[in-house]
Amino acid sequence: MKELLSIVNLTEAFKSFPSIGEKTAERMAYAILDMDDRKVDFLINAIEEAKEKIHVCPNCGALIDTSECPYCGKERSHDICIVVSYPKDILTFERTESFKGIYHCLNGEISSSKGKTIKDLNIDQLTYRIKKENIKELIIATNPTIEGETTALYIAKIYEDYPIKVSRLAHGIPMGANIEYSDNLTLLKALENRTDIK
Amino acid sequence: MKELLSIVNLTEAFKSFPSIGEKTAERMAYAILDMDDRKVDFLINAIEEAKEKIHVCPNCGALIDTSECPYCGKERSHDICIVVSYPKDILTFERTESFKGIYHCLNGEISSSKGKTIKDLNIDQLTYRIKKENIKELIIATNPTIEGETTALYIAKIYEDYPIKVSRLAHGIPMGANIEYSDNLTLLKALENRTDIK
Repeated sequence: MKELLSIVNLTEAFKSFPSIGEKTAERMAYAILDMDDRKVDFLINAIEEAKEKIHVCPNCGALIDTSECPYCGKERSHDICIVVSYPKDILTFERTESFKGIYHCLNGEISSSKGKTIKDLNIDQLTYRIKKENIKELIIATNPTIEGETTALYIAKIYEDYPIKVSRLAHGIPMGANIEYSDNLTLLKALENRTDIK
Repeated sequence: MKELLSIVNLTEAFKSFPSIGEKTAERMAYAILDMDDRKVDFLINAIEEAKEKIHVCPNCGALIDTSECPYCGKERSHDICIVVSYPKDILTFERTESFKGIYHCLNGEISSSKGKTIKDLNIDQLTYRIKKENIKELIIATNPTIEGETTALYIAKIYEDYPIKVSRLAHGIPMGANIEYSDNLTLLKALENRTDIK
């Protein structure tokens, strides 16, 4: 048998991406061979540019490609700060085009399986910012998973005695979803956090 | 909102791979940022090497990374030739380490939806090889789909009057599979092509 070394290497490289398995990685490797040179150059340039231009804002932890962070400027309201687990979550909030406050990225969540503790998270910088930027409310927007919930509770505990409000994103039935297909935990949360309409 | 141009470009590039959707492409783009430089270099090198070193054997259509095609040499039996639709199918057969004949790649299948006719397939070269290499049997190994079946029937028709045998891979219940979960068409094929055991 004669395996093609470049295909084996390419498959290996693609397999290291999240949610890409052996079969998909191999299919992608072969797809490279079918692509015209222009497309391959575009891909390689995009990879190189991303690594070169995108960096982490030392203040809030967002991913940025400018020297000034677009989320830390004076035009944003520094009273209120959304605390996210991962940099890309910031973009998800920005896409709603309605939040004008600031962000803070923890760069992870507490996870016993991944060996991540509160010390591995970007918390000291958050404490520093609460004082320096005079933040009045933290909205904890970690994921609604065991890891995210644990992280949220920890943060609430840390700032217990601070003169700031700490809130959590509402959990409930997603808009447009069908109640019939909602899972039990979501339904319980939706009942628990029901809002008055009259 | 401030989208990161490099991420948008990377997402676009990954989306052009087969079976990679918007969300997976975006996740892959962000994964690039988390990779260390060594891994990114490995990926880029693998892409460049694959494009540079792998080429198509002008005789059989296989993908090869050597000047001599490992499937066209004299040590292989030229009596019997497996006809595949795509180059990667050759590797699938090679992995069984049991076939010692030769291959011929059609580079596609007849498909009305993709506008591919018999003229777009690598048939003339096959006809030339049948005579030159004195091939005695073609085993048609196109996919068991409408496109693959149509292609197989066409090829059988083309070589109707040639003094060669044309066979088709057996269809039936895959080894290790559960009969309970077999689809109707597979079951029908398995019944139709049943083999005597006594």
